[in-house]
Amino acid sequence: MTRTTPAGTPLNDAFHLYDTTLRDGSQREGISYSVAEKLAAARVLDALGVGFVEAGWPGAMPKDTEFFRRAQDELSLRHAALVAFGSTRKAGTRADRDPQVRALLDAQAPVVTLVAKSDARHIRRALRTDVAENRAMVEDTVRFLVREGRRVFLDAEHFFDGYAYDPATALGVLEAAAGAGADVAVLCDTNGGRLPDDLGATVEEVVARTGLRVGIHCQNDTGCAVACTIAAVRAGATHAQCTANGYGERAGNADLFAVVGNLSTKLGMAVLPEGRLAELSRTARELAALAHLPHDPHQPYVGDSAFAHKAGLHASAVKVDPLLYNHVDPVTVGNGTRILVSEMSGRASLELKAAELGLDFAGAPDALTRAVAKVKEREAAGWSYEAADASLELLLRAELAGDGAVEGGFRAPFAVLAHEVRSERRTDGTALSEATVRLRADAGEPTGEIRHTARGDGPVEALDAALRGALRARLPWLDALEPTRYDVRVLDDADGAGAAIRVTLTSRLGGREWTTVGTHANLVEAALLALCDALAYGDGYGESGGVRDAARRDVRETASVR
Amino acid sequence: MTRTTPAGTPLNDAFHLYDTTLRDGSQREGISYSVAEKLAAARVLDALGVGFVEAGWPGAMPKDTEFFRRAQDELSLRHAALVAFGSTRKAGTRADRDPQVRALLDAQAPVVTLVAKSDARHIRRALRTDVAENRAMVEDTVRFLVREGRRVFLDAEHFFDGYAYDPATALGVLEAAAGAGADVAVLCDTNGGRLPDDLGATVEEVVARTGLRVGIHCQNDTGCAVACTIAAVRAGATHAQCTANGYGERAGNADLFAVVGNLSTKLGMAVLPEGRLAELSRTARELAALAHLPHDPHQPYVGDSAFAHKAGLHASAVKVDPLLYNHVDPVTVGNGTRILVSEMSGRASLELKAAELGLDFAGAPDALTRAVAKVKEREAAGWSYEAADASLELLLRAELAGDGAVEGGFRAPFAVLAHEVRSERRTDGTALSEATVRLRADAGEPTGEIRHTARGDGPVEALDAALRGALRARLPWLDALEPTRYDVRVLDDADGAGAAIRVTLTSRLGGREWTTVGTHANLVEAALLALCDALAYGDGYGESGGVRDAARRDVRETASVR
Repeated sequence: MTRTTPAGTPLNDAFHLYDTTLRDGSQREGISYSVAEKLAAARVLDALGVGFVEAGWPGAMPKDTEFFRRAQDELSLRHAALVAFGSTRKAGTRADRDPQVRALLDAQAPVVTLVAKSDARHIRRALRTDVAENRAMVEDTVRFLVREGRRVFLDAEHFFDGYAYDPATALGVLEAAAGAGADVAVLCDTNGGRLPDDLGATVEEVVARTGLRVGIHCQNDTGCAVACTIAAVRAGATHAQCTANGYGERAGNADLFAVVGNLSTKLGMAVLPEGRLAELSRTARELAALAHLPHDPHQPYVGDSAFAHKAGLHASAVKVDPLLYNHVDPVTVGNGTRILVSEMSGRASLELKAAELGLDFAGAPDALTRAVAKVKEREAAGWSYEAADASLELLLRAELAGDGAVEGGFRAPFAVLAHEVRSERRTDGTALSEATVRLRADAGEPTGEIRHTARGDGPVEALDAALRGALRARLPWLDALEPTRYDVRVLDDADGAGAAIRVTLTSRLGGREWTTVGTHANLVEAALLALCDALAYGDGYGESGGVRDAARRDVRETASVR
Repeated sequence: MTRTTPAGTPLNDAFHLYDTTLRDGSQREGISYSVAEKLAAARVLDALGVGFVEAGWPGAMPKDTEFFRRAQDELSLRHAALVAFGSTRKAGTRADRDPQVRALLDAQAPVVTLVAKSDARHIRRALRTDVAENRAMVEDTVRFLVREGRRVFLDAEHFFDGYAYDPATALGVLEAAAGAGADVAVLCDTNGGRLPDDLGATVEEVVARTGLRVGIHCQNDTGCAVACTIAAVRAGATHAQCTANGYGERAGNADLFAVVGNLSTKLGMAVLPEGRLAELSRTARELAALAHLPHDPHQPYVGDSAFAHKAGLHASAVKVDPLLYNHVDPVTVGNGTRILVSEMSGRASLELKAAELGLDFAGAPDALTRAVAKVKEREAAGWSYEAADASLELLLRAELAGDGAVEGGFRAPFAVLAHEVRSERRTDGTALSEATVRLRADAGEPTGEIRHTARGDGPVEALDAALRGALRARLPWLDALEPTRYDVRVLDDADGAGAAIRVTLTSRLGGREWTTVGTHANLVEAALLALCDALAYGDGYGESGGVRDAARRDVRETASVR
């Protein structure tokens, strides 16, 4: 699929599903995306099929400048247009000489969303300028960016308060932007204080009075951001700004998934490309993971508990006729009535998953039984295979090998016999992290014990270096193996203190990436498990030469670049 | 204040603020109140001033039977009437002989809310009876309970679906109840699938067609429960059923606090007794604690972050005029404006934050300059003070102490000189994690070097044990210090591999909790920094004896119990 023209036009331009998770969503306390995470999140949002991904404020935030620079090489979006967010020129300057405006241009995103003040009080007290100069700032900046080939949207900040206080000033800002070539006038309830009825009435009035294409941006301070967004769409807005899982400052923004769920299943609007609605629940989880936040089980449509039934009263009736008790069929939005939790541990689903990985358990029922038991036991102990296909594949292949299966069976090319990790800082300030591993390499004929000591920035890095040192002679491809993502998750026990530690590791070799997992009460042991799987999986890939399994690996790869 | 008569009439009967946290809210997965917790929660709800506390289903749930028995002696409510929830008589029986109905009477609550089916499909398929018998069940049960002196409300289950499918049957149930003496016909959106517009239109229609007093009960499956409740009130409902913090099955119920916030501050309705609105935020926390759930910082009106400002853009303007950026004055609902210290913040935000922590930098501009520089440098290196107020306070106090400030200056009571951590597994499978710290305790007069070695499940646990061991004699309160949350975050560098590691630690001493942070390329060093801050902060609290700084600590404490 190729990008439609002109630049900045998504596949469906009639209604804009506009995501600002990576810009406004990152205002939420505790969210601090790395550039790599932003790139991954943009891919996930694009795969869902949103029309626009507003990814940051280049020029104002160094990380965002870096994001847009890397996006030019590393992002190839199929559905979404990338959006750079920024401000109009400063008062008393020229747009083409304003460094912040130039940074927006340098970001090379096809779309720029400009935020401008539309409340006369904010113009005077916060911006310390007058209404006429504020209008000129909007006009100049929009015109400059449009001339430079950008599609421009205008975020009218505090619009609803501004319109209530002084409608002429508020509308004047929208008209100035439109006159200079902006495509959408986005009405922002910046302090989130509106209720749906009033907000909808204002949207309807603005559409009627100006004839402009109007968008909506709601905050959740009254607990009504989703309802306000729906009310605005019903009142004529054709552009809705949302964030994944409602992330955002204070009480958050309008939740993308609830908005999509409502527009799709209640108003019958096709706001996602064909077939993508069923990806809603999975996408919500992926974006929570990229924000390092837990998935909220009680989230509408996409939560693990969104279609779960506890009341005895209901539970039996649900069995009789699920649609009597569910407001929509959970399958529509990729959710289930409590199947997700046990999904991986059920025999049928594990067999399906194995088939997806190219492994055939039809002739090995005992191996499947053992694999099911092992996955269950490990998931109960805090392992999670959902995002670690490589570790799951190794587990399944080991069971196939145990049954003597010729196809798909695989044993790790080495076994760690012992390890020691030491990290110290001396009184003179010098610091050292060192690890020693003792292992036996089993590739080809078994070797005697190999022992290797190495240093690193910390215990895990030292362990990685020691493993590589011990195996380098036997696994020559190891030097090309790069870690691309390393994640530690402390799993709370009942008291909230850490009980087990899960290390997830993504590794890259050539164009391939895979993810492995290890869980243990001791972080060092957890990391060692994930590292060993990463190397074993890499060796299996090296062995197959990337030919036999190339097709299915490509599929998994796309899915695992998170 | 004495209870008004007749029984079951709250102080303000014109509008019913009806809480069902203890009945419908407890359907949320993971909530399981003890009887004592239910009694405590009922007192908290009464103190807030709700009109009705629906506390359980006596007869169906043994715990609830016990609750109502104990409530007769142990509960003395000032504002609220207690409500027993239950079902109409079974098909083909007599109300006065139905044991479930008798249990409702035995509960001795002045009000009974009866749930009845109002969707013809549910009557046939789930209840397996016919529309006429369903009506008779409602009539008989209401009449019996009214004769016995109870005030009766009717919850019409699945009303909106039922009314859309077969309005005559749905309205027939309401009329049967009213004819038999029920006071309120509560329209329940049981599967939570409605949007506010449609729901409001139906409420308006039902009020117009029946002339009955109508109530509303919304679930949050579209993310619109609060908006739907407000829409129903605007459409004529004078009885709103809510749950604290929106607890409830699936996506939950309408959040009591957002509903109260909106009705009070947006619609100008006096739904709580005079002066109680300012208790909203405290009440939300108390009820979260009683449900053993964390307080949600992003909850509208009452969340810790509900009025917090992160963007530098906003934070400076907030200083100029808070009401330009807050949709209501946070004080109205017992909340405060918090300033989040983050990479986006500058001097103004840090000074505001210091003031919030009770520290005055007015006479120490150089100390403030140094603190700003240090925070910026550290945030750039991956530290995050946003969720670690205790570490930030220590940093600020250290700079004040550096300027010789008498007020607020504080130095850590010990300094770690050297440390060593070792984690190993031997070939025989035995494993060991051990840490040694060497430190000087500076509390009172400096000591010589103290050295201590200890073991743990992993390197961080061993380090914690060694620190405690070394300091136990000097900081006797240490034994009571518990870690309640331990979090590790790997911060990606440009390549996505781990460049720095941030450890965040929450500690509890008595009723106080505080959060500290440490960031370093080496996980062990990062953990040590967070651990040292945790102990230093705890000692500062111990030193002040909870007296000097009690007032501001109480404020922060409330804010930090998340």
